[in-house]
Amino acid sequence: MIKVAIVGGTGYTGVELLRLLALHPHAQVKVITSRSEEGVRVADMYPNLRESYPNLAFTVPDADALTSCDVVFFATPHGVAHSLADEILQAGTRVIDLSADFRLEDADEWAQWYGQPHGAPHLLADAIYGLPEVNRDKIKDARLIAVPGCYPTAVQLGLLPLVEAGLADPQQIIASCASGVSGAGRGAKVGSLFCEAGENMMAYGVKGHRHLPEIKQGLSRAAGQPVELTFVPHLVPMIRGIHATLYTTVVDRSVDLQALFEQRYQNEPFVDVLPAGVFPQTRTVKGANMCRIAVQRPQNGDVVVVMSVIDNLVKGASGQAVQNMNIMFGLDENSGLTTIALIP
Amino acid sequence: MIKVAIVGGTGYTGVELLRLLALHPHAQVKVITSRSEEGVRVADMYPNLRESYPNLAFTVPDADALTSCDVVFFATPHGVAHSLADEILQAGTRVIDLSADFRLEDADEWAQWYGQPHGAPHLLADAIYGLPEVNRDKIKDARLIAVPGCYPTAVQLGLLPLVEAGLADPQQIIASCASGVSGAGRGAKVGSLFCEAGENMMAYGVKGHRHLPEIKQGLSRAAGQPVELTFVPHLVPMIRGIHATLYTTVVDRSVDLQALFEQRYQNEPFVDVLPAGVFPQTRTVKGANMCRIAVQRPQNGDVVVVMSVIDNLVKGASGQAVQNMNIMFGLDENSGLTTIALIP
Amino acid sequence: MIKVAIVGGTGYTGVELLRLLALHPHAQVKVITSRSEEGVRVADMYPNLRESYPNLAFTVPDADALTSCDVVFFATPHGVAHSLADEILQAGTRVIDLSADFRLEDADEWAQWYGQPHGAPHLLADAIYGLPEVNRDKIKDARLIAVPGCYPTAVQLGLLPLVEAGLADPQQIIASCASGVSGAGRGAKVGSLFCEAGENMMAYGVKGHRHLPEIKQGLSRAAGQPVELTFVPHLVPMIRGIHATLYTTVVDRSVDLQALFEQRYQNEPFVDVLPAGVFPQTRTVKGANMCRIAVQRPQNGDVVVVMSVIDNLVKGASGQAVQNMNIMFGLDENSGLTTIALIP
Amino acid sequence: MIKVAIVGGTGYTGVELLRLLALHPHAQVKVITSRSEEGVRVADMYPNLRESYPNLAFTVPDADALTSCDVVFFATPHGVAHSLADEILQAGTRVIDLSADFRLEDADEWAQWYGQPHGAPHLLADAIYGLPEVNRDKIKDARLIAVPGCYPTAVQLGLLPLVEAGLADPQQIIASCASGVSGAGRGAKVGSLFCEAGENMMAYGVKGHRHLPEIKQGLSRAAGQPVELTFVPHLVPMIRGIHATLYTTVVDRSVDLQALFEQRYQNEPFVDVLPAGVFPQTRTVKGANMCRIAVQRPQNGDVVVVMSVIDNLVKGASGQAVQNMNIMFGLDENSGLTTIALIP
Repeated sequence: MIKVAIVGGTGYTGVELLRLLALHPHAQVKVITSRSEEGVRVADMYPNLRESYPNLAFTVPDADALTSCDVVFFATPHGVAHSLADEILQAGTRVIDLSADFRLEDADEWAQWYGQPHGAPHLLADAIYGLPEVNRDKIKDARLIAVPGCYPTAVQLGLLPLVEAGLADPQQIIASCASGVSGAGRGAKVGSLFCEAGENMMAYGVKGHRHLPEIKQGLSRAAGQPVELTFVPHLVPMIRGIHATLYTTVVDRSVDLQALFEQRYQNEPFVDVLPAGVFPQTRTVKGANMCRIAVQRPQNGDVVVVMSVIDNLVKGASGQAVQNMNIMFGLDENSGLTTIALIP
Repeated sequence: MIKVAIVGGTGYTGVELLRLLALHPHAQVKVITSRSEEGVRVADMYPNLRESYPNLAFTVPDADALTSCDVVFFATPHGVAHSLADEILQAGTRVIDLSADFRLEDADEWAQWYGQPHGAPHLLADAIYGLPEVNRDKIKDARLIAVPGCYPTAVQLGLLPLVEAGLADPQQIIASCASGVSGAGRGAKVGSLFCEAGENMMAYGVKGHRHLPEIKQGLSRAAGQPVELTFVPHLVPMIRGIHATLYTTVVDRSVDLQALFEQRYQNEPFVDVLPAGVFPQTRTVKGANMCRIAVQRPQNGDVVVVMSVIDNLVKGASGQAVQNMNIMFGLDENSGLTTIALIP
Repeated sequence: MIKVAIVGGTGYTGVELLRLLALHPHAQVKVITSRSEEGVRVADMYPNLRESYPNLAFTVPDADALTSCDVVFFATPHGVAHSLADEILQAGTRVIDLSADFRLEDADEWAQWYGQPHGAPHLLADAIYGLPEVNRDKIKDARLIAVPGCYPTAVQLGLLPLVEAGLADPQQIIASCASGVSGAGRGAKVGSLFCEAGENMMAYGVKGHRHLPEIKQGLSRAAGQPVELTFVPHLVPMIRGIHATLYTTVVDRSVDLQALFEQRYQNEPFVDVLPAGVFPQTRTVKGANMCRIAVQRPQNGDVVVVMSVIDNLVKGASGQAVQNMNIMFGLDENSGLTTIALIP
Repeated sequence: MIKVAIVGGTGYTGVELLRLLALHPHAQVKVITSRSEEGVRVADMYPNLRESYPNLAFTVPDADALTSCDVVFFATPHGVAHSLADEILQAGTRVIDLSADFRLEDADEWAQWYGQPHGAPHLLADAIYGLPEVNRDKIKDARLIAVPGCYPTAVQLGLLPLVEAGLADPQQIIASCASGVSGAGRGAKVGSLFCEAGENMMAYGVKGHRHLPEIKQGLSRAAGQPVELTFVPHLVPMIRGIHATLYTTVVDRSVDLQALFEQRYQNEPFVDVLPAGVFPQTRTVKGANMCRIAVQRPQNGDVVVVMSVIDNLVKGASGQAVQNMNIMFGLDENSGLTTIALIP
């Protein structure tokens, strides 16, 4: 049984980790930390967990407790993993970081986008970007995983087949994306209120969202050359889900894109290429660790449209984190990840 | 492995049965019928099931196919089980009916509320009302189960401790209830449209809802005397969930109601009496086979208020149906029912 | 042109006052105050008002500015009107208070429910409870109006015909009510987040909500005797709207309740008794200063069920406040209140 | 007083026309037709209109009744206006058609996209495309108006300043749009159910939506050359609202786009260019005849992003229809269109 600790478990990615790990046959949550909620039982904060965790309570982060576990998940704001990861890693405990702390290879770029110096640049060489569909082999031996962001997961999975095959014009890529409100976290912000986010849609971060450099890094690596990207995220009135609509100019019209996508993901347990002509709905992945994708070339023109959906809290965060854990510990990759999306 | 057939699997209770049974360790869906969708793959209609049922397709109901299974679930409009149950039962296959066909003991009363003659009165003697918290022993040996309605489940579980103990004034019971829109089914009705049911709340069926005689029958049996009830259902803009707020006059103020409720349900795996002062939220049971209950006597007066929540499609329908199956077949009662409610 | 000031205009009742007054033919907002938003233009906070108030900006409350107006609306948390009303009234400016400060006649009872001493008991004798359907004549001459709470408006309008006629058992009244999330205000609270309040229903304040004494005071006055009431509010996932379902035992079954209600409200411009058998929907009053009511006696029994709906921000707050202003200033009562509810 | 008839008034654009016209100072609805609802009172179908239309009832379409009015609005499925418009026009009554019947100049193209022959090609020469921001002068003298579609209104208003100025690369335009569910109408379709459209986002019509040729026609006319466009509509879980996110490559980076947009629309009462850096929210136009627009060039690159929002039922349909009527009849253009968007 893998002993698990979660640092910062009061947010939505924290409770989602708890939900997934409760059903995991080979892992058990031993420690969950929160400075503000010390002593509060998890089940009192999240009554859906009353049967699963009758006794687990939040504790103040403590190095001994954390390093007594096999793996520590960080479900924290950026900066926290920077300050704690080193000590944990040195004790031989592995780290799976759901925050942005180790996603960018370049510490200077990180500092620029996050408005503070990078707190652990010496660990960057060890950090593996935890997108199993790209880095599965490296993840197997990793001790520090940077779990991809939610938008970057949906966008990269949607574009990788084209970019890897050199079929997308690297100067003409647009990612028009939308997220449910849980992407903004459980913080008490006016913009996330039911009466502000309900019955409303809006773009945000148009000038430059922090997921932009992460996506560009991933696509550029896949393309073997720098990729330019226009990324516009939107907020839509639903709780969970990301819908990415991706537009690019195809370099070679003769390629069978449906076949290309099916082939690329034929062995991927958590990427589903839909039959030709079927377009993905976010609710078909609600609560499930799955990315569903469709590709279309409207009116047989030059423009390819890819649609890619995930649950931002599962394949876009906690589910992908568990998937990484499974790979790192040599478990069946879908252990604890068999939940089926709730329809309706 | 229990071989399962589902008659009428295109509605919301049908897809929910499929979701739950896909994760059941000891059951497998062999047959699913729908006259209108013959030949359509389940996964094409419900893309959340693409991984679970890659090949299962709807077929026209066929006696041989149904009786080759161990159990047949009816997820049909009322009247259908009346016409098919006898033949299935005679072949030795058990029947779990999610419709209202066998819920009322009195065939005449059934005819009056459902506006048509009862189609199988000779089977009523064998039909067991499938509320495990009342009838667990009878369910073990049953061959025909009438799965309770959604409102009746929430209301009865909320009132049983009081009624069984003779603490509720049988002339003064009010059930003010609300349901999410999935309770109206997947039929294309104007009243269930997003733009009609969204941002709206309304009462309906105030003159007399079909669940009224079912609730009265259950409570009267528990009370050992006739019970009168005012039942007002409401429609609220959410997909899943029933919230029942129950009001009655307490006969004896000295009783510790919190203790009474905890004791009544202490061995029930799917009824959760919340700590004193905590009130249930429907989202804490979304997707889970659970009923959460709180009891309160405001300002220490005569009026008891009980709040009871379920997911109408799980403990209020398909989950309870699977729970019945587990009991009938001697399985662990929570087989296939370990899913945790999705929060957020 | 009536010169209007609004104290505390950043919340939902504030913006709603601005919306209604923008279309008012005889009133103009001259001053709007907010300490935290000083200098911010109203149109920058609420872009729906860009055309209506291109220049109006929030200012720090200032006695001279306020008393230069004909009327001051308080859209503030409780306690604020206590401290400012006296000075404004002495300057001859009238006060319409949307907060709870002057709703209860008894200063001690106020102190008990609001957890602080009453700040202006000497003004209570002058305060008129601004429910026009009860106090229209007194409102005409009033200089200080206590605008009723949202639940109290819906509940009292629903019960008044019965209570005034002595038809309701004063010991057997239950108000099972539900509110949209805007009732919780625009404060950044976790419980009001889209991901907490969405797809969820829950009761709250069961032990005793601050609107309880207000409702009891109003009904007792109407009954001419003390009235007992069980009041349970619920939160439902919609932005606007209150649905009150009211249960009482009728003293005399022979009375034609439909006629009684129609007669009681035949001259009321903002109370609509629906045709027999039609039940009110909250969306039919969304954005409109209207209360729609239906009365029903299920199965011809003793229990009367009244359903009453309002928009909590209009007839339950800002619309009713404008209605009071119209009466006080001798204007046509529906000036500025002609907006039609938005369907869909 | 302008006498108005509405053909096909049971749908969402019909009830919205009724709402707007009820508050119009110079128009009055005399006739409203519906074959299926003959004899039903408008107020019984739409209880929000009980005060505004206490007696108006649906009638079967009748030429005499229609031609006794000054103007007939068609709020019908496509094809109906084709068959009725001629007779009405010949009687001297003007026609404002909210359907697609007269939007495309080319009858063959219409036939191709709508799958049936064009029913009134001889009227095309008289039909004016009712986008006042382009065709105001022609509308003044028109007798037959084709009210633009909802997506075409949002997309064209967002792109016109760029296209008219020759700043957009006519081969590189992408319109990634989203609509609330009311865009699908009031028909009882499974896909529009609360439990299907709620908590979900999906693209549709990717292969080719009927609004595509309409948008291309309008932009090509504005550009003075053929314009290519990729148009992907999405369905998002809100009742009203369209959000268009428009991407194009700018031909000349030196132009001040904010100034360009402000100048283009400076005299337009129903187009609001937001201050630089502010992005539009659909709720800021909910119920209002307004289009709010923002323009942005992320990271000072080549790609321009324009965001444009409307209420699909108002500026995208019924409000724009009334705006056309006002222009045709020489009225103040905002008569009956002063309603302010509802926030929250």
